[in-house]
Amino acid sequence: MAPTTNNRVIFAAIPKDYPIPGETTVYDTTQTIDLDAVPLNGGFIIKTLVLSVDPYMRGRMRDPEIKSYSTPFKVGAPTTGYGIGVVVRSEHPDVAVGKYVYGGELPHQEYTVLSSAEGLVFLEKDPELPWTVYVGAAGMPGKTAFMGWKELAHAKKGETAFVTTGAGPVGSMVIQLAKRDGLRVIASAGSEEKVKYMKEIGADVVFNYKTTDTAEVLAREGPIDVYWDNVGGDILDAALEHSALYARFVICGMISGYNTGHTGIKNMHQTFSRSLSINGFIVSRLEPKYDTEFYATIPRALASGEIKYREDVSNGLETVGDAILRVQQGKNTGKAVVVVAEE
Amino acid sequence: MAPTTNNRVIFAAIPKDYPIPGETTVYDTTQTIDLDAVPLNGGFIIKTLVLSVDPYMRGRMRDPEIKSYSTPFKVGAPTTGYGIGVVVRSEHPDVAVGKYVYGGELPHQEYTVLSSAEGLVFLEKDPELPWTVYVGAAGMPGKTAFMGWKELAHAKKGETAFVTTGAGPVGSMVIQLAKRDGLRVIASAGSEEKVKYMKEIGADVVFNYKTTDTAEVLAREGPIDVYWDNVGGDILDAALEHSALYARFVICGMISGYNTGHTGIKNMHQTFSRSLSINGFIVSRLEPKYDTEFYATIPRALASGEIKYREDVSNGLETVGDAILRVQQGKNTGKAVVVVAEE
Repeated sequence: MAPTTNNRVIFAAIPKDYPIPGETTVYDTTQTIDLDAVPLNGGFIIKTLVLSVDPYMRGRMRDPEIKSYSTPFKVGAPTTGYGIGVVVRSEHPDVAVGKYVYGGELPHQEYTVLSSAEGLVFLEKDPELPWTVYVGAAGMPGKTAFMGWKELAHAKKGETAFVTTGAGPVGSMVIQLAKRDGLRVIASAGSEEKVKYMKEIGADVVFNYKTTDTAEVLAREGPIDVYWDNVGGDILDAALEHSALYARFVICGMISGYNTGHTGIKNMHQTFSRSLSINGFIVSRLEPKYDTEFYATIPRALASGEIKYREDVSNGLETVGDAILRVQQGKNTGKAVVVVAEE
Repeated sequence: MAPTTNNRVIFAAIPKDYPIPGETTVYDTTQTIDLDAVPLNGGFIIKTLVLSVDPYMRGRMRDPEIKSYSTPFKVGAPTTGYGIGVVVRSEHPDVAVGKYVYGGELPHQEYTVLSSAEGLVFLEKDPELPWTVYVGAAGMPGKTAFMGWKELAHAKKGETAFVTTGAGPVGSMVIQLAKRDGLRVIASAGSEEKVKYMKEIGADVVFNYKTTDTAEVLAREGPIDVYWDNVGGDILDAALEHSALYARFVICGMISGYNTGHTGIKNMHQTFSRSLSINGFIVSRLEPKYDTEFYATIPRALASGEIKYREDVSNGLETVGDAILRVQQGKNTGKAVVVVAEE
């Protein structure tokens, strides 16, 4: 068979602030692949079906000299991330053609030759869910909410939780888990449309942090027993100021600082005044403990509508760069997913 | 019997920064008390023997409108704090003359009439220890170290701990508890004399934070698994920067901010990058859990020399104001105690 295109998204340069399509990320159509002839050396080829675009990716677009929990993207190579593919040819004894794989390091390209299945999860799809959900509410962001909440919130019925980025894929799941546990939920997001969505999924007090002062809301509706932090900065400071005695702070992310630098937190002395417990986590470190429980319960709850989710789907690999930027700007409504190919 | 003097230390004004003797605290010699005639109404009189001077007292010298974990001092009334007294007259059925009491709210005056024994601890003195120790290594600061370490450090043999204010009454106890648990200990203090003392009590790496850059020491000797914070500010930031994966931060106090305001903490994003656990505490909230174990073990370990301590003792109630200032300036060498009267 003749070679087919193998289009890619290349990490072209380390961004100064926001990652601009055409500068930071470049869509490249120069490569081809011969699916029948390319040597596999005992490995297999996957065809990329969906790719996930997530806030943490900004942290990988850094000078490789700077250490962090994630490996840096390599300038000149494709960006990578969570995604789902289908095996189209295989020499690997454990990897059959037609199997679906979920991985956290899939290159942003149409086809990828892999030598090993290490780190991949083989998925069975719920017939009522599309594959896109398996990188969202049933994928990394859903796991982030589920596992972080289970491990660190120590939620008690009747308590008050404050959830930031409550309309996003992580925050919207946290709101619903908190409501299931019987908490009163205050939730914030950055647009009126997002505020409306948070109300729809059950948050008790909702507000737009861009037009309403977070500290004022928390002064009126708090103090808060659980704080779910996806933003950091001034909002973390306001949460510290309006925390209850023995409050738990679950530090999941700090998007306010990813592009323009982290601001100093002024209220850390509340940590001892109020005997606070502030815990950070990375979902991959909790997966071994909770993966079985997660896959056994959450996809079904999503398919039945018991837990709601929404997606912001764009089509075609060429939309990845724009999706990356929009997520950093908070312009996505729902989990950002790129459909690269139908099966 | 004729009335006797009942000299006092009065909280005269809320300080702008450091609490100045003669302005913030005023020694007052105008009062008298008739120990035989003063009505007790079923209560008792204690004669003050020793008073404790501690960093947290600065937090009580505030505008009473500002909420905090401690009650504010009242302008015009005596300052109060941890202390030990002996009962010299009693109408209370459970409080015999000659009993020794330990309390956290003793007024800074020679004699005090109390109506209730609530909140007081009746102490039996180890014959080899002076009473002063019972407000220090065998009192609140010792309990702070012992209970905070037991509850929050989750120390494992072979790990590295970093202890700030390591020559002070809390920090010096923490260093010794960490060494008993088999940790390697980095410790900082603010003078060469204090640095020498930290080495004497077993710290492995010691330095003067005023002349040596904390971040440089931690870059070379870290990363750190346990951080004991008594200071906050830039040193907390350096500890965050050089923390190990899954490090525990025990937030005990932040004296760097008490007099001149808290600086912003810039490295809080390490909380999720490294899955940190940052926990604050107030010793009084842990006493119900650990008091029995503490009194059963620590005074004996102090008397035998197994755990070392040192005191900075001044004599006479008139020295309280100066002791309060010196503690805020870090000029005390050892636990600051004022001996008000011999028995």
